[in-house]
Amino acid sequence: MKKFMDSDFLLSTETAKILYHNYAEKLPIIDYHCHLSPKEIAEDKRYTNITEVWLYGDHYKWRAMRSCGVDERYITGNASDYDRFKAFCSIMPKLIGNPIYHWSHLELQRYFDCDLEICEANCDEIWAIAAAKLAEPDMSAQSLIRKSGVVLLCTTDDPADNLEYHKQLAENGFGTKVLPAFRPDKGMNIERKGITEYIKLLGESTGVEITDLACLEQAYEISLDRFSALGCLTADHGMDNTVDFVKPDPYHANEIFKKALASDGADITADELVLYRSQMMRFFGMQYKKRGWVMQLHYGVMRNPNREMFEKLGPDTGYDIIHGAISAASFAKMLDYLKDNDALPRTIIYSINPIENAAIGTLCGAFCVGDGKGKPTVTQGSAWWFNDNFDGMVAQMKSYANLSAFGNFLGMLTDSRSFLSYPRHEYFRRILCRIVGEWVEEGMYPENYESLAQLVADICYNNTKDYFGFCMD
Amino acid sequence: MKKFMDSDFLLSTETAKILYHNYAEKLPIIDYHCHLSPKEIAEDKRYTNITEVWLYGDHYKWRAMRSCGVDERYITGNASDYDRFKAFCSIMPKLIGNPIYHWSHLELQRYFDCDLEICEANCDEIWAIAAAKLAEPDMSAQSLIRKSGVVLLCTTDDPADNLEYHKQLAENGFGTKVLPAFRPDKGMNIERKGITEYIKLLGESTGVEITDLACLEQAYEISLDRFSALGCLTADHGMDNTVDFVKPDPYHANEIFKKALASDGADITADELVLYRSQMMRFFGMQYKKRGWVMQLHYGVMRNPNREMFEKLGPDTGYDIIHGAISAASFAKMLDYLKDNDALPRTIIYSINPIENAAIGTLCGAFCVGDGKGKPTVTQGSAWWFNDNFDGMVAQMKSYANLSAFGNFLGMLTDSRSFLSYPRHEYFRRILCRIVGEWVEEGMYPENYESLAQLVADICYNNTKDYFGFCMD
Amino acid sequence: MKKFMDSDFLLSTETAKILYHNYAEKLPIIDYHCHLSPKEIAEDKRYTNITEVWLYGDHYKWRAMRSCGVDERYITGNASDYDRFKAFCSIMPKLIGNPIYHWSHLELQRYFDCDLEICEANCDEIWAIAAAKLAEPDMSAQSLIRKSGVVLLCTTDDPADNLEYHKQLAENGFGTKVLPAFRPDKGMNIERKGITEYIKLLGESTGVEITDLACLEQAYEISLDRFSALGCLTADHGMDNTVDFVKPDPYHANEIFKKALASDGADITADELVLYRSQMMRFFGMQYKKRGWVMQLHYGVMRNPNREMFEKLGPDTGYDIIHGAISAASFAKMLDYLKDNDALPRTIIYSINPIENAAIGTLCGAFCVGDGKGKPTVTQGSAWWFNDNFDGMVAQMKSYANLSAFGNFLGMLTDSRSFLSYPRHEYFRRILCRIVGEWVEEGMYPENYESLAQLVADICYNNTKDYFGFCMD
Repeated sequence: MKKFMDSDFLLSTETAKILYHNYAEKLPIIDYHCHLSPKEIAEDKRYTNITEVWLYGDHYKWRAMRSCGVDERYITGNASDYDRFKAFCSIMPKLIGNPIYHWSHLELQRYFDCDLEICEANCDEIWAIAAAKLAEPDMSAQSLIRKSGVVLLCTTDDPADNLEYHKQLAENGFGTKVLPAFRPDKGMNIERKGITEYIKLLGESTGVEITDLACLEQAYEISLDRFSALGCLTADHGMDNTVDFVKPDPYHANEIFKKALASDGADITADELVLYRSQMMRFFGMQYKKRGWVMQLHYGVMRNPNREMFEKLGPDTGYDIIHGAISAASFAKMLDYLKDNDALPRTIIYSINPIENAAIGTLCGAFCVGDGKGKPTVTQGSAWWFNDNFDGMVAQMKSYANLSAFGNFLGMLTDSRSFLSYPRHEYFRRILCRIVGEWVEEGMYPENYESLAQLVADICYNNTKDYFGFCMD
Repeated sequence: MKKFMDSDFLLSTETAKILYHNYAEKLPIIDYHCHLSPKEIAEDKRYTNITEVWLYGDHYKWRAMRSCGVDERYITGNASDYDRFKAFCSIMPKLIGNPIYHWSHLELQRYFDCDLEICEANCDEIWAIAAAKLAEPDMSAQSLIRKSGVVLLCTTDDPADNLEYHKQLAENGFGTKVLPAFRPDKGMNIERKGITEYIKLLGESTGVEITDLACLEQAYEISLDRFSALGCLTADHGMDNTVDFVKPDPYHANEIFKKALASDGADITADELVLYRSQMMRFFGMQYKKRGWVMQLHYGVMRNPNREMFEKLGPDTGYDIIHGAISAASFAKMLDYLKDNDALPRTIIYSINPIENAAIGTLCGAFCVGDGKGKPTVTQGSAWWFNDNFDGMVAQMKSYANLSAFGNFLGMLTDSRSFLSYPRHEYFRRILCRIVGEWVEEGMYPENYESLAQLVADICYNNTKDYFGFCMD
Repeated sequence: MKKFMDSDFLLSTETAKILYHNYAEKLPIIDYHCHLSPKEIAEDKRYTNITEVWLYGDHYKWRAMRSCGVDERYITGNASDYDRFKAFCSIMPKLIGNPIYHWSHLELQRYFDCDLEICEANCDEIWAIAAAKLAEPDMSAQSLIRKSGVVLLCTTDDPADNLEYHKQLAENGFGTKVLPAFRPDKGMNIERKGITEYIKLLGESTGVEITDLACLEQAYEISLDRFSALGCLTADHGMDNTVDFVKPDPYHANEIFKKALASDGADITADELVLYRSQMMRFFGMQYKKRGWVMQLHYGVMRNPNREMFEKLGPDTGYDIIHGAISAASFAKMLDYLKDNDALPRTIIYSINPIENAAIGTLCGAFCVGDGKGKPTVTQGSAWWFNDNFDGMVAQMKSYANLSAFGNFLGMLTDSRSFLSYPRHEYFRRILCRIVGEWVEEGMYPENYESLAQLVADICYNNTKDYFGFCMD
């Protein structure tokens, strides 16, 4: 019987322990995709209690609470912070097998020096320990990032954002590089109410009066330059539902865009949306490739299926689901077109549906150019969102290894809104070392610590640094 | 080397042994979904040989025999009971890795006190032991149920059924509650020949002359009341193929229903069928919600793809398959509509295709209302049919745990036509304790027997009791 | 810690070791589906260096190299054989978890008596060992086949092939039977440029002037007779993308075929293609059934999604992907029609997408006729292509076992273009013994070596021999 979540947590073999403690554990973290607020980082936000830091913005925890039938008052309602925390503690024993169980205990151990079991009986003690700890000076946003070993992180930012906090952080650093990442989803969703206002905002932020597609592209170029100037090296597209692609057609795409502007998205058909998006994927792909950026594609989510709760709480509140549609074939069509048109930069694909691991793994292989640069052109990203758990990460890593070259895997990112989420890198690294350790002890791979250490260091750190071209000096 | 299927069968850790033997094993069984014949229970049916009890109605075993090329004469034909049993014994060694292997041996051990290996060489000895045992007084249907520890079971009944055997059983009980469950599939399949006669039958059983949708709903309400009066607390829908949903439209649904009645289903288009069913899902959802029932939705089966054998043997003879279509998105549409129209009762979703575990797991989470009642509004049911095996149950439980709160899982049901199928609950409980035991001994969960025992008891018994609101006094 | 790939490689239990070393290891190999060149076998091809044998034709290895960003010059370009081998060695440590890692080391151990780790540092030593070994007399194509224990193999041949090398091999044998297998894909793809020329070629090879469907069928019958005369017992269809089927219609199929001949495939619509193929599936199914052949159906591949590389390198160069579409329902429709029209021979289905394992497993069960012949009519083939790895084989075998009768499984084939690929049978057999060993030592199956040995021998050898009816005297 192993002790509950001790220093050898998840390390099932001696090899795993050696790989983790001697190599993986000590490596710095590059968190190349997250949703932290640049403002909160720049202002070095502080917290007064654990509810603020754990429950204010974490829709994973909200979803778990709703699944346990906890009253919404304790989730997004007006219950007191203490009562909300108590409600969360009380459901924790039911979350066995859920990553929240491990994440929460890891966070408690690492940031609060507390190894209590989270449950209703320990609620008051944890509440007090956390409050005392949060009052200490090194529990601010910047301190939390720095002491987690994060040397670089990329936030997720809208093209209309003026990046003022990134500028502040570039001027007044705190030891961790904070770069923006370009996420143009709002301008892709021209079928939604609010698009006209959004395009106006984008125009204002770039000094372009956007009346047609040419202006739009001009505005985006100005924005891309602004991001580049602050060190941005990656863009991210949230491709909801299915991935559809048709051959771009600038004339009709322009007509569609103008129509959307005029109607505020009201009359855009599904076909029009696909054509517009295809045209823009070409534009963005060319821009990213020219700039040497990495393009991230997240897809397969059905957002806000629960209309009532969407209207009450807005997006990103724990109601999104896996869409379920299969997109490998249309994805191939898009990648082939982009490649032929000098618009396929280095690309990372994340599927929300674990059943697409195999298809996506083969898809990536078909668009890797043997270019002598030692990196995959297209590669699968780490287990995303609903798959970001022990079983999901194991499945994604084994699929990646079977269908590609595991030594090139880009490893972990938090995709998180929380300053306490860095133990997810620890969690990932432990699982990585566990998998490799089991392979080695099974006689499936040589017990050669030079190459094993290289493999682990590459997946935990080097590959990401090199793939994006982050400058770490 | 563990002994073959001994008392610690499947219990891979000490923790698993403690959890199973001290807690799970002793708990009573609520079998909330099965296909036992109320008539056979009421008449306390007896058997003279093991073929009657094992092979007369078990299409799982028939399918296995056909896969081994056994002549249909020994499966559904006119071979003698002994020859059929011998044919079954002779293929058993080929069924390694198939749940039938374990189910059959568990049944032999538990009901016949026989721990022989089932194979051609042991056929005669098993035949004789079984015959002797079946002649004992406590081997009748009611005895088998009672000594299996079943305190409550729900059969599956048509709305046109007059429930006479349930009435008999309510009056002359035998220690186990036998409740009906409402399954209105026949009235949903208005595109099939025979619908006119079925609707006539439903009308007769409820005293309503059904000429339009209003009458149909009136008849269903009378039937629902009849089920309620006998303690029914759940309905079940077998949603074949894909789940499609459109916004209900009572006017056109009524026209479609009348057309089906007139043509005996002949001219109903696919779109008409979807509209009619959507309208009826709203009606049934409202009824179930109002009555506090649990709605069970089974979906994804392609029934009777082998036309020839369907025409020879009829339905439920071992020829159904997994349809393969992906339905999460349309399911979301349906649940959202039902929720907005006060027609979403507590709901259990079962997918026949294991690849939908993840999508369905997330779907359930999006429709859980934080209502303070401590239960998930929508939840995934246990591994169903083709997944009701070791690997399938492990996959379903781990997916459930990762995407929801495992402590709320409703656990096992037999879905069986056999009075000997209760060891499937034992099989499930052993697998449950095995999973939890491995988590604990791996250090992934605290070795806290109070919360572990609670978890196991909840999943094996309490959750089902509370979710359906079964009264166990 | 087990030693790296020693004699007990993958054998995780004592039972597995006994089953493998006492039974599986000693059994001959029937490789019933491969892509070896009959010409190279007949001419008893020799190799001068390891690059020729490992890298000239193996698109699995090319794909892995591209995923590592190796310059195409070292893959399909004009780099020297030594430089190509060095490039391959240098990426090998990144391929942990990829089957190429194991296959390559097994091949090095078995054929070159070399147990070095493949890596850049050992490149020169391996290069020299291999060169010396390849110069030995028993390293020719026939010697490699014979000393691998292969007693029979089936190549994959076009109906227009005159089978001259098979004739030579039948006359001048070398101890291994080399049979042709009939693969009529080219004549199924009437929508592709080149179809007119291909049909002309088929006509010439059969002495039929093919102007319509009747002539085409006549030509195919002559070809089928030619294959039969050389001992052919199986046909194979590569059904790309999705499997669609409509009710055959000879009149329109003939019109479509004539149109394709006239236009060289230019104007064939998707619907026309489906109708033509459906008609031909009926024709071929009847032919195979009449001749007692086994029909193999491989499906789900999206071929050549990377147009640029297809134009440069042609097909089968490492760019194919998993299509992703789900085909169980349309497959059922096809099998049902074929069965009703005396056109369903014994059939093996291979899905490229592992997510279809469950649906295909159930599909096979629904079309098994209980015919008393002791064999499944329709059965799932071994883990194919992208699934032909440790995890994929385990998943396929467990799915097969859960949904059918594992004792009937037809086991392994190489599907390979290489004379060194036979260790894949060894790899498979080790994994098989591992799975069975774990079942037995877990107490899930009796430790009965008589039935275990039978099971292993059946899956490794007997089932294939009997299912195809290969005559081994």
